[in-house]
Amino acid sequence: MNTSIIRYVLGQVLRLEGLFMFLPCVVALIYGELSGLAFLGTALLSIMLGTLMTYQKPTSHTFYLKEGCITTALSWILLSVFGALPFCISGEIPFFTDALFETVSGFTTTGASILSDIEALSHCSLFWRSFTHWIGGMGVLVFLLAIVPLSGGSNINLMRAESPGPSVGKLVPKMKLTARILYAIYFVMTLTMVLLLLTGGMPLFEALCTAFGTAGTGGFGVLNSSIASYSPYIQWVVTIFMILFGVNFNAYYFILFRQFSKAFAMEEVRYYFLIILSAIAIIFIDIFDMFSGAFEALTHAAFQVGSIITTTGFSTLDFNLWPQTSKTILILLMFIGACAGSTGGGIKVSRFVVLLKTVGKELHSYMHPRSIKKIQLDGKPVEHDVVRSINVYCITFVIVFCASVLLISFEGKDFVTNFTAVAATINNIGPGLELVGPTANFGFFSNFSKYVLIFDMLAGRLELFPLLLLFHPTIWRDYLRQKRKQK
Amino acid sequence: MNTSIIRYVLGQVLRLEGLFMFLPCVVALIYGELSGLAFLGTALLSIMLGTLMTYQKPTSHTFYLKEGCITTALSWILLSVFGALPFCISGEIPFFTDALFETVSGFTTTGASILSDIEALSHCSLFWRSFTHWIGGMGVLVFLLAIVPLSGGSNINLMRAESPGPSVGKLVPKMKLTARILYAIYFVMTLTMVLLLLTGGMPLFEALCTAFGTAGTGGFGVLNSSIASYSPYIQWVVTIFMILFGVNFNAYYFILFRQFSKAFAMEEVRYYFLIILSAIAIIFIDIFDMFSGAFEALTHAAFQVGSIITTTGFSTLDFNLWPQTSKTILILLMFIGACAGSTGGGIKVSRFVVLLKTVGKELHSYMHPRSIKKIQLDGKPVEHDVVRSINVYCITFVIVFCASVLLISFEGKDFVTNFTAVAATINNIGPGLELVGPTANFGFFSNFSKYVLIFDMLAGRLELFPLLLLFHPTIWRDYLRQKRKQK
Repeated sequence: MNTSIIRYVLGQVLRLEGLFMFLPCVVALIYGELSGLAFLGTALLSIMLGTLMTYQKPTSHTFYLKEGCITTALSWILLSVFGALPFCISGEIPFFTDALFETVSGFTTTGASILSDIEALSHCSLFWRSFTHWIGGMGVLVFLLAIVPLSGGSNINLMRAESPGPSVGKLVPKMKLTARILYAIYFVMTLTMVLLLLTGGMPLFEALCTAFGTAGTGGFGVLNSSIASYSPYIQWVVTIFMILFGVNFNAYYFILFRQFSKAFAMEEVRYYFLIILSAIAIIFIDIFDMFSGAFEALTHAAFQVGSIITTTGFSTLDFNLWPQTSKTILILLMFIGACAGSTGGGIKVSRFVVLLKTVGKELHSYMHPRSIKKIQLDGKPVEHDVVRSINVYCITFVIVFCASVLLISFEGKDFVTNFTAVAATINNIGPGLELVGPTANFGFFSNFSKYVLIFDMLAGRLELFPLLLLFHPTIWRDYLRQKRKQK
Repeated sequence: MNTSIIRYVLGQVLRLEGLFMFLPCVVALIYGELSGLAFLGTALLSIMLGTLMTYQKPTSHTFYLKEGCITTALSWILLSVFGALPFCISGEIPFFTDALFETVSGFTTTGASILSDIEALSHCSLFWRSFTHWIGGMGVLVFLLAIVPLSGGSNINLMRAESPGPSVGKLVPKMKLTARILYAIYFVMTLTMVLLLLTGGMPLFEALCTAFGTAGTGGFGVLNSSIASYSPYIQWVVTIFMILFGVNFNAYYFILFRQFSKAFAMEEVRYYFLIILSAIAIIFIDIFDMFSGAFEALTHAAFQVGSIITTTGFSTLDFNLWPQTSKTILILLMFIGACAGSTGGGIKVSRFVVLLKTVGKELHSYMHPRSIKKIQLDGKPVEHDVVRSINVYCITFVIVFCASVLLISFEGKDFVTNFTAVAATINNIGPGLELVGPTANFGFFSNFSKYVLIFDMLAGRLELFPLLLLFHPTIWRDYLRQKRKQK
């Protein structure tokens, strides 16, 4: 295993985080908040440590899938640990486990909070909390690839481990350019959203934080009432942008380069909108008589569907009180998730489309046992290897899911709370139902359960395998053997 | 499609059911019950209709997988419809949907009941109800294969569609002999159990019905309290036999022919016992202080684990009142189910073993991307095709499961009731949690939900695809085209 490159990239990640942390410092300066010192201190510490770690250039640039996965997993853990420090140092979130939960929830764009009173936080903490969503949404290593010259051609393995979805397409042959195009689209869309929110009369600070939370499909708000107290105009802006950030970014790339037919031919995106529209329609009918008018019911139905399927997790009301059919649909949407290659979480629409086609093919094979038809996506045959890896992904997902529900059941909370708490974290959504519903928070869980849920958030964001690999005995055996050799 | 052979086999099935129905007639004679006339009438009707359908010999004996699946699905539907008639005619279950639910629940060895007062039924109805478990457990077509000379070598396709588990091994080259050996083992084990129950002081009638319910891993009892009012001796006999009937019958075949090493080398059986012992241990610790002594706690833990993992569904108490960890374990066991090639339901232990090994292989491939190691079961490599079909099975299972939960959510019952009602029927268990817990019944559901659950019971017993195939448009298009040609 090439440990020197892992160390080098981790150092770069830490330096980058330090630089990012100057942003909340600026916010603290504007609002004159003392908590800013905690951010400044952590920023300097991160940059110092990062510089030390990158001082020695890596001995080799070979970078296989194994190294890519381990680097990604360790980067995200490191990011979260250092990102949590300012909350502890400033005393705004006194316990480290809670601060870590909040930060992991931020970077993984989950948006599940342990705080009962968000408005008690300082502006700089609120800003950092929302900014982690923006960074985590597109990926910190993708950002690194866009700015740091990492020579060696195999750094697609880094991006592959961090990007959501079954297959990572390079948009252009050069990795660095791909990363830059992605972040450029991301930046412009976020900016557009901020402007539209400002037009609706939202203050700049709230507009920035809301846009970060929407762009990363995260879900941290700056008010205790999430998005409920804003005007319908703002709620619709958020709804539309949540849904837009859940679209596969390849579609925007095609639109950007005027390949419109290619963009509209993307099956995943078409199914994504089909699911959204059907879900809104059914829920609209189901909740219609709970509201005073059709427009109000439609606003809430669209907002909640957009918020859950894109795994953002903003809320405008307590859907825990909705009828059972609407709640069941929301639970199902939690698992479907957004498109691959978007900032959203969940299992991803394209995986479901492939799985559904597999079932259709199986039924077909009962009637024509000798048929060897391959399933197709976007008009191209899907390789067996991709189908296999999607299958394995879903199975692993179910196993991690069941194990987590079992582990947090030790606390004795009811089944729906446990089930939706795990669903909301592993799919990076935020709120669940019952005790972890939209108006509640995750603070009541024991530290043990919080670590289980932290694991689930990271596992969900990194698509399971990079994180599971850290627990594989062979990795450690190899590492220790190598250490012994060096001595 | 070879419709003449389908008609012929369906006729045979109907005749066979008519013959079986003379058994409750005998019970009615002994107890002097008028309801016996309903059974006699239905028996004669079935035999007449069956004879008419088999009068014309099939024009061809070719029997592909497609015909096998359709015959199996239609056989089970026909069996259930005619099996439900006596309940309606005698007025003991006045509504046809209820009677059908009860009969499907019997044949599929689910054991979910719509009756609130079981003891109000006549002895002949109770006997028939339990006897459907015994027939359904090993399979009615397997029985047919054992006694009716169906020439043509491809009738393994019948057995393949009816037998539970990912791969059907012929024990011996001749299908007929395999079917006979299976039924012989089944008969001897049931008889042994009856004798042991009689030794414990159980009356003959109750011993027979309890043994039928255990052998088929069904779960219909003859008392409202299920097994709760019997002595610990009887509870342990039932526990042990439930677990034994959940073992892959190939193991018994090996033991019968003194190939002990082969029997003990079966990985599935070893994992099956490992899961049972671990589950009993955890639940025992979890519920220990709810009981007056360790023996009592152990009795209940072992009984409930055996009852749920083998998908029998007998109960000795209301585990709905147990702590959350025990309940979560029971929910997980519901899905794991018994061994393939046993009378139990669920997804089957062997499928889980293969899935777990697939995940292990995937993690391994991250470290050694060029490795092409195949996963092994019982020391033999598992073919890609088997792995693929297990994957597709699980995906289809999840889709049918989610669709069912959504459909019955229209009634507005709570999520745990809906979730466990579907889990208890599709896995052929019987009781779920909350409103469908061990002391409750399924009577309160609307007719629509009952038909959804009837579908789930049949889909679970026939391992999804035979039943789903009936809904495939191509099947109907082919059938109609053929009809038109004949004209």
